[in-house]
Amino acid sequence: MTHDGTNEGTNFDPWYDRYADRTAGLSASEVRALFAVASRPEVVSLAGGMPFVAGLPSELIAGAFERMMATQGLQALQYSSGQGIPALREQILEVMALEGIRASVDDVVVTTGSQHALELVTKLFINPGDVVLAEGPSYVTAMVVFNSFQADITHVPMDEHGLIPEALRSTISRLKAVGKTIKFLYTIPSFSNPAGVTLTWERRLEILEICRANDILVLEDNPYGLLYFDSPPPQAMRSVDEDGVVYLGTFSKTLAPGFRVGWALAPHAIREKLILANEAAVLSPSSFGQLMISEYLATADWKGQINTFRDIYRDRRDAMLAALAEYLPQLSWTVPTGGFYVWVTLPDHMDSKAMLPRAVKELVAYTPGTAFYADGSGRNNIRLSFCYPTPEFIREGIRRLSVVINGELDLLSTFSQTSPLATIPLKLGIASPPSNIG
Amino acid sequence: MTHDGTNEGTNFDPWYDRYADRTAGLSASEVRALFAVASRPEVVSLAGGMPFVAGLPSELIAGAFERMMATQGLQALQYSSGQGIPALREQILEVMALEGIRASVDDVVVTTGSQHALELVTKLFINPGDVVLAEGPSYVTAMVVFNSFQADITHVPMDEHGLIPEALRSTISRLKAVGKTIKFLYTIPSFSNPAGVTLTWERRLEILEICRANDILVLEDNPYGLLYFDSPPPQAMRSVDEDGVVYLGTFSKTLAPGFRVGWALAPHAIREKLILANEAAVLSPSSFGQLMISEYLATADWKGQINTFRDIYRDRRDAMLAALAEYLPQLSWTVPTGGFYVWVTLPDHMDSKAMLPRAVKELVAYTPGTAFYADGSGRNNIRLSFCYPTPEFIREGIRRLSVVINGELDLLSTFSQTSPLATIPLKLGIASPPSNIG
Repeated sequence: MTHDGTNEGTNFDPWYDRYADRTAGLSASEVRALFAVASRPEVVSLAGGMPFVAGLPSELIAGAFERMMATQGLQALQYSSGQGIPALREQILEVMALEGIRASVDDVVVTTGSQHALELVTKLFINPGDVVLAEGPSYVTAMVVFNSFQADITHVPMDEHGLIPEALRSTISRLKAVGKTIKFLYTIPSFSNPAGVTLTWERRLEILEICRANDILVLEDNPYGLLYFDSPPPQAMRSVDEDGVVYLGTFSKTLAPGFRVGWALAPHAIREKLILANEAAVLSPSSFGQLMISEYLATADWKGQINTFRDIYRDRRDAMLAALAEYLPQLSWTVPTGGFYVWVTLPDHMDSKAMLPRAVKELVAYTPGTAFYADGSGRNNIRLSFCYPTPEFIREGIRRLSVVINGELDLLSTFSQTSPLATIPLKLGIASPPSNIG
Repeated sequence: MTHDGTNEGTNFDPWYDRYADRTAGLSASEVRALFAVASRPEVVSLAGGMPFVAGLPSELIAGAFERMMATQGLQALQYSSGQGIPALREQILEVMALEGIRASVDDVVVTTGSQHALELVTKLFINPGDVVLAEGPSYVTAMVVFNSFQADITHVPMDEHGLIPEALRSTISRLKAVGKTIKFLYTIPSFSNPAGVTLTWERRLEILEICRANDILVLEDNPYGLLYFDSPPPQAMRSVDEDGVVYLGTFSKTLAPGFRVGWALAPHAIREKLILANEAAVLSPSSFGQLMISEYLATADWKGQINTFRDIYRDRRDAMLAALAEYLPQLSWTVPTGGFYVWVTLPDHMDSKAMLPRAVKELVAYTPGTAFYADGSGRNNIRLSFCYPTPEFIREGIRRLSVVINGELDLLSTFSQTSPLATIPLKLGIASPPSNIG
């Protein structure tokens, strides 16, 4: 085949047979297709994970810009280093100290959002076929990254207290028995995406111990830890293990994602390689974005602003839980104490992906549960985000969702009376609370 | 071995045996080590490739910021799409039209600097052992990327008219004869880095034809094309081949690198995969940076600003060439008609890397030629950048460099009179002009 069109296959891409093997693992996520839908103004989107940036006073951004340009304008326009600007890295230490982390400024690497840290760590560690352990369910775009480096993603079950240590142990044993190489455990221990649950302190210690004993690096992703609604979550896993954890943080949820500034805190040797990988990928993260954030942290009441966000998201969480209890009492869901997400379990036989077009017709969007599993699980789950719509829209969105779900249940009920399946009882999820995960 | 320190090797990295195979290819570039040196104020650095951002009036940036925040502030703070903001992609079409490119806005993908487009294209195409063809010498951090995906970099010789088509043909034949898979040709056809030469129009057409006939994608990297000093370079290779070329552009040199905004223009099918790879890597490029640039392009005299940059860099090029002719007439060098770099050839037996510490002692820095080859070539070459220092500093830098080089020559001359090597005549490069490359 030549690339000017003489291939005989049915694929119209003339470069079809030229891609790297890993490119076969790059497919559009189910979340991606939703972005187009969610952007229509008449749809209440409970699908995306966009923070409510309107909660950030624009004068704080304008002030940071003016001060930055007055004192560091040329530096903001120029390349900087692959590790990130030192002043910002010092400030990142202060942010992490709020979750019990003590670290050296030398071990912080600024990245283009924490997403890029995920990509770089995966690039550094994953050979084709290596196993990445991940919570079931797990963050969809982390799994896209793992797949793009041909990792073998294996889920470890979680419950309302997060990842289950005993399940982790048995999963590791099973994989080792068949000769698999397990490179790291990817986890969002606080207010997880999508499950909205938090790993207890005791389990954090136990999981670190299990991973240490098995040479498994822990990749602790913590975008939501500071966005708690009542009391703080347990301290970060990194706070008690500096050799076995790569910790990922971001300003996307506590400030704004538009700057694309996140970071990794890594053990020394890994950090050195991360810097090299970062330089190869982008030369240096945006100086402009870094210095805007550095100036903001230096002069604005950033902790007060995080409290503002907490209040906003707590109200929305409350609105969502109240609406679920009112409109969909027959379902079960998790009760997040921070973060952005509620994980809902539909009756066993329902298919949330198949239901989505009907939901969009009712002008509400969500993310189907299968998006958060690499193995096809999650068919009767949905993730609902309460971060972006106002409480009123959340309530209206849940009402619309109840129309769709109740319609499905009616249909299934009718169907069950006229088919052999009628002998199978409807298995509804347990009533909420308590939470109920996968 | 366990990662808490019971390994028996001499390596102190407890994760030493856990990295992916590709990570072995990630090593610090010679340019990287220079950044620390070059930042000392007493050193005249002719080493880096930092654009002269002080040539950009800060009120243009402030104006763009104010207008952007007034009309698109929330969008600037939010996530955007993995392809980039549509309005900016439309403006990028106008920029590319200046170099003869006609394209669809759908085929532009905004990236975190064009560096990240390089990384993503390499990730999409390179299996371990695949060949990337690159000019000899070639851009150092492109080669870092290729190595990080375990590519086999093969150089194709160039002369003062750029890459030599006949050499490309024979290189391809030789590689195919031994069963190698050649995935793409990486080239900087206009004002190349580091050689400072420009590929003629006739050669552009011939090279496209050669690559088309051999199923080799052309990766056309064009950061400097608009920074010509007299007349424009030949039109972009992409202007006559939309199926066989991935074109990379950037705002880093015509505006400022601190925003980290570049782009790829790719054939449809490749573009789709680039968007997915971009989303996996960073979710979306910085909305803030994209909208700042979009607002700047919409309201500032950006073409006039490029003319200003042209004038600045032309003066500096002139200062460098004049100083070389005055202080180092015995050497040869290229005569760039645009861009940032002059490529200097030292006498055959000199080692520019070994000489660098002596240069730094004389308070001048350059980049050794070996940094720009994957195969150890370039030992007696250096790259001199005229983009950042003022003409006065450039002149002083070249004077200092002449002290170092003349000192070396004296030493070699003394040595040659007292050793068996005395019978080997000194082979000096031809006097400049004309240019003389590898």
